[in-house]
Amino acid sequence: MKLTAVFPGTFDPITNGHLDIISRGRDLFDRIVIAILRNPDKDPLFALEERAEILKTVVGPWSNVEVDSFDGLLIDFVRARGARVIVRGLRALSDFEYEFQMTLMNQRLEPGIQTVFMMPSEAYSYVSSRLVKEVARLGGDVTGLVPPDVATRLNRRFAGMRRGGGRG
Amino acid sequence: MKLTAVFPGTFDPITNGHLDIISRGRDLFDRIVIAILRNPDKDPLFALEERAEILKTVVGPWSNVEVDSFDGLLIDFVRARGARVIVRGLRALSDFEYEFQMTLMNQRLEPGIQTVFMMPSEAYSYVSSRLVKEVARLGGDVTGLVPPDVATRLNRRFAGMRRGGGRG
Amino acid sequence: MKLTAVFPGTFDPITNGHLDIISRGRDLFDRIVIAILRNPDKDPLFALEERAEILKTVVGPWSNVEVDSFDGLLIDFVRARGARVIVRGLRALSDFEYEFQMTLMNQRLEPGIQTVFMMPSEAYSYVSSRLVKEVARLGGDVTGLVPPDVATRLNRRFAGMRRGGGRG
Amino acid sequence: MKLTAVFPGTFDPITNGHLDIISRGRDLFDRIVIAILRNPDKDPLFALEERAEILKTVVGPWSNVEVDSFDGLLIDFVRARGARVIVRGLRALSDFEYEFQMTLMNQRLEPGIQTVFMMPSEAYSYVSSRLVKEVARLGGDVTGLVPPDVATRLNRRFAGMRRGGGRG
Amino acid sequence: MKLTAVFPGTFDPITNGHLDIISRGRDLFDRIVIAILRNPDKDPLFALEERAEILKTVVGPWSNVEVDSFDGLLIDFVRARGARVIVRGLRALSDFEYEFQMTLMNQRLEPGIQTVFMMPSEAYSYVSSRLVKEVARLGGDVTGLVPPDVATRLNRRFAGMRRGGGRG
Amino acid sequence: MKLTAVFPGTFDPITNGHLDIISRGRDLFDRIVIAILRNPDKDPLFALEERAEILKTVVGPWSNVEVDSFDGLLIDFVRARGARVIVRGLRALSDFEYEFQMTLMNQRLEPGIQTVFMMPSEAYSYVSSRLVKEVARLGGDVTGLVPPDVATRLNRRFAGMRRGGGRG
Repeated sequence: MKLTAVFPGTFDPITNGHLDIISRGRDLFDRIVIAILRNPDKDPLFALEERAEILKTVVGPWSNVEVDSFDGLLIDFVRARGARVIVRGLRALSDFEYEFQMTLMNQRLEPGIQTVFMMPSEAYSYVSSRLVKEVARLGGDVTGLVPPDVATRLNRRFAGMRRGGGRG
Repeated sequence: MKLTAVFPGTFDPITNGHLDIISRGRDLFDRIVIAILRNPDKDPLFALEERAEILKTVVGPWSNVEVDSFDGLLIDFVRARGARVIVRGLRALSDFEYEFQMTLMNQRLEPGIQTVFMMPSEAYSYVSSRLVKEVARLGGDVTGLVPPDVATRLNRRFAGMRRGGGRG
Repeated sequence: MKLTAVFPGTFDPITNGHLDIISRGRDLFDRIVIAILRNPDKDPLFALEERAEILKTVVGPWSNVEVDSFDGLLIDFVRARGARVIVRGLRALSDFEYEFQMTLMNQRLEPGIQTVFMMPSEAYSYVSSRLVKEVARLGGDVTGLVPPDVATRLNRRFAGMRRGGGRG
Repeated sequence: MKLTAVFPGTFDPITNGHLDIISRGRDLFDRIVIAILRNPDKDPLFALEERAEILKTVVGPWSNVEVDSFDGLLIDFVRARGARVIVRGLRALSDFEYEFQMTLMNQRLEPGIQTVFMMPSEAYSYVSSRLVKEVARLGGDVTGLVPPDVATRLNRRFAGMRRGGGRG
Repeated sequence: MKLTAVFPGTFDPITNGHLDIISRGRDLFDRIVIAILRNPDKDPLFALEERAEILKTVVGPWSNVEVDSFDGLLIDFVRARGARVIVRGLRALSDFEYEFQMTLMNQRLEPGIQTVFMMPSEAYSYVSSRLVKEVARLGGDVTGLVPPDVATRLNRRFAGMRRGGGRG
Repeated sequence: MKLTAVFPGTFDPITNGHLDIISRGRDLFDRIVIAILRNPDKDPLFALEERAEILKTVVGPWSNVEVDSFDGLLIDFVRARGARVIVRGLRALSDFEYEFQMTLMNQRLEPGIQTVFMMPSEAYSYVSSRLVKEVARLGGDVTGLVPPDVATRLNRRFAGMRRGGGRG
C-alpha cells in the first residue's frame, strides 16, 4: 500500500531532533508531508514563509518529503492530503500528557487516521525549539542542535535584536 | 515500499488492548508479525503453544497478520524476518521508562530498524495481561477486556485451580 | 453525619468529565456545592453568569447539587459554606503536581477540611475544557464530550467569531 | 446518608501514613472498615493475626473504625460489607499507575462503588511499609514513622533475626 | 580544593524551601553565590533591588553565602564568578523536565561545570514562590513558608493592592 | 574544607553511566568512596570480589577515588567513613520515586549528611546494569556501554552459560 504520513509542528525553527524524526519517518512511509502550523495566535520568531523556506532547503535532498502548512484542525488537513498517518516525535523529556490527549481526541474525530510516535536519538532528548531559541537569544552556541543554516539565522536575528536596543 | 512490522510481546494472554494495536498496525503496514516471547525464565499462565493457538484463532480473519515466536534479541528476530519496524502499544498508564530504554538500546543495536508507538483506545487504557489474570483468578468478570475465547480459557483455568485446592 | 462537599473549578465550560465527577460525588456526600472560580485575571470564553446558567441547567435534575461562585481562597469559601470536603477530579492525564501542591497547602491552611480525589470514567480521560474549546474553535465536533446545550453554545460562539473576521 | 468506607491494604505493618489516612477518612465517613489483604502468595513479615492485632490496638480509641480481612476481589468484600466507598492513600511518591488501573477496573466491575483518594500529610510522603521494614531490618530508627508498638515489634523481630544468624 | 557553587533563581520572593537548599549547599561548598535572575521579560512582584535586599538580610548570618544577580546565559555567569558547580533544588513536585533539559544543555555548553541537585526537607515539598504569592494575594497566611520579613512584605504589598481597588 | 563523598550502588557490573557520574563527582569532591552494596539477598551476576576487582581496575588511574563495600544502613557506612555527602546518578529514565524516598529517609536518619544528584551525559540516559546484562545475555553487543574489560567479562560469562546448556 502507498502511505502518506503528516508530521505537524510549529518548526520555529526546525531542530536536529525534528530532522531525526523526519529521517526515520521517510524510511517507513512513502511520503512525508511536513505540516507547519500557521498559528496566528502565537508570536513566532520566524514568519511562516521563512519557516517554510528553511524546511524546504533542509529536506530538499529527500525526494519523498514535502513541506506544507495548515491551520484549522490537523485531522482535516490530514484528510485533505489523503494521508492516513500522523507522525509525532516523543522524547523522554517531552510533554506526554498533551500528546496523549491530542491522540485520543484525534482517534475520536477520525478513527481512520492513526498517530504513531517515534523517538529521536538520545542525543536530541533535550533539544526543543523553545530551548534552542532561549540559548541563542542569550548568545549561547547552538551549533549541532539545529541545521547550520538555522544557526546562522538565529545568530543574525538575535544579534540584530541586541544591536537594536538589547533584549530587555 | 513493502513494509513488515513486528509486534512483540508475551501475550499471556492477548487482551483487547493488544488487538486494538494489531488492528491499527495492520492498517498501516503490509504485514504484521506477532512475535511471542518464549521467555522460559518466567512462569507463564499459558504455555507458548496455547498462546500461539489463541493468537492464530483471534487474528485468523486478518490476512496480513501472522503469528511467530522468538527468544534471543528481538532485533535479531526482526532482522531475520526481513522487517524494518517494531510496533509497541503505549498506554498513558504503561511503563514509559522501560519502553524508552528498550527503544534507545534497539536504535543503537540496529539503526536501520525503527520503533513506532501506537496508542490503544482509551477504553483499554487500564487493561494489561497481568491485571486481567489477577481479576480472573479472583473470580471477577473479564468479558470485554479479552477475546471471548480467552475469557473462557481463563475461567476454565482458574476454576480448575480453585477446585484443585484453592489459589493459595 | 451530614456532609457538604465543594467541587471547585473554572467550568469554562463544564465537560462530561466534570459531570461524571459530580455524579460520583453526589452519590457519596449529602450535598455538592459546585464552586465556580470567578477569576477576573483570566479571559474566560463564557462569562461567569453564563457558566452559572449552564451549570444550573445541567445539574438541575439533581436535588442535592447546587451552584455557587467564589473568589479569594477556596478554603475560605469552603468554611463559609459549612463544608468539610473538597472534591477534585484526577485524570491519569491531568496535572498531579498542581493538585498535590494545592492539597498540601490547603491541609496546612485548614487541617479540618479534607480533599478527596475521584477518577472519571476512562472515556473522559482526555477531555478538558481547554481541549474542548480548542477543537470547537477549529470547527471540530465535540458532541459527547460536553452536555448538548454546551455543544450548541460552543458552535454558536465560534461560528460567530469566524463570521466576525476569522479566528486570527 | 450513612456511608461505610473500606480502606484496604496489606498493613505489613501499619505506618503513620496509613493512620493519617484512616484519621482523615473517619472524619468524612460514618464507618471505616480496614480490610487487611490476606495475600497468602507473598511472604509477609507479620502474620495476618499479628497485623490484625496491631491494627485493633492502634485504632481502638476510634469508635467508628473496625478491622477485618479479605482475600478474593476487593470489590466483592466491599459489597459484602455493605460499603459504597473505597479509600486509598495517594502520595506524591507512590504508584499512580497501579492505583489508576485498579480504580478503572473496579469502576468497571462495580459502577456503584466509588474510589476516593486522600493525601497524607507531607510528613509521611516518603513512608511506606516496605521502606520502614528495610530500615528497621538494618538497625535504623523508625520512631515517628510507625506507631510505638509497631516500632517495638519491628526491633524485636529483626533483633531476633540478627541473633539467629544474621540477615544474610 | 576550594569550590564555589552558584544557586540561581528568580527568588520572587525567597521561600523557606530555597533557604533549606542554601543551608545544605553551604554545608558542602566553600562559597555559595545566590544568583538572582534579572529577567526583564517577566513581571516580578518584587523588583530586583528588593529581592536582593531581602536575600542579603536573610543570608546575612552565613559568612560563606553572597548575593549577586545575572542576566544572559547562566553558564557565562558561573564562569565569570570562577564557580564550577550549579546547585538546584529538586522537589518531588517540581518540574523535572525543565531541570533535565537545562542540565543537559548546560553540560553541552560547558562540560567543566557540574549541576548538582539537592532535595529540600519534605516540609517544603509543596512550597513554591508562585504558590506562596497566590495564597498571600488571596489573604491566606504564609507564616512558616517564607522568612518572617518576607511574610510581612507580602502582606503589606497585597493589602496595598486590595486597598488600591481590589485584585481584579 | 575537605569533603569525602560516597557513591553507593550494586555495580553488577559498573557501566559507563556510573563512570560518568564518578568522573563528575571526583571533580567536585576531594575524595569519592565507591561503596558496593554486598546485598546477599539478591543473586548478583558478579560476586562482590569480582565487582570490586573490576571497579579498582577501572578507577585505578584516579587518585582520589577508592573502592569499598558495605551492608547495613548506607548512612552508617557514610558516617563510618567520615563522609558528609552521598552522590547519586539521576537519569531522566530512572526511578525518581525510590531516590526521593531514600533521600528523605536518609535526611531523617542523619540530617548532617547530604545527598546530591548528578546527571550523566544524555549518551547514557538509557544505560543500566540490568539492561546491559539482558542484552549481553542474549548475545547483543554492549561495547561502548561498559568499560572494555566489563564487556569481555560479560561475553565470557554468558558464552559459558550458553555452552553449559542454554540460558533456559
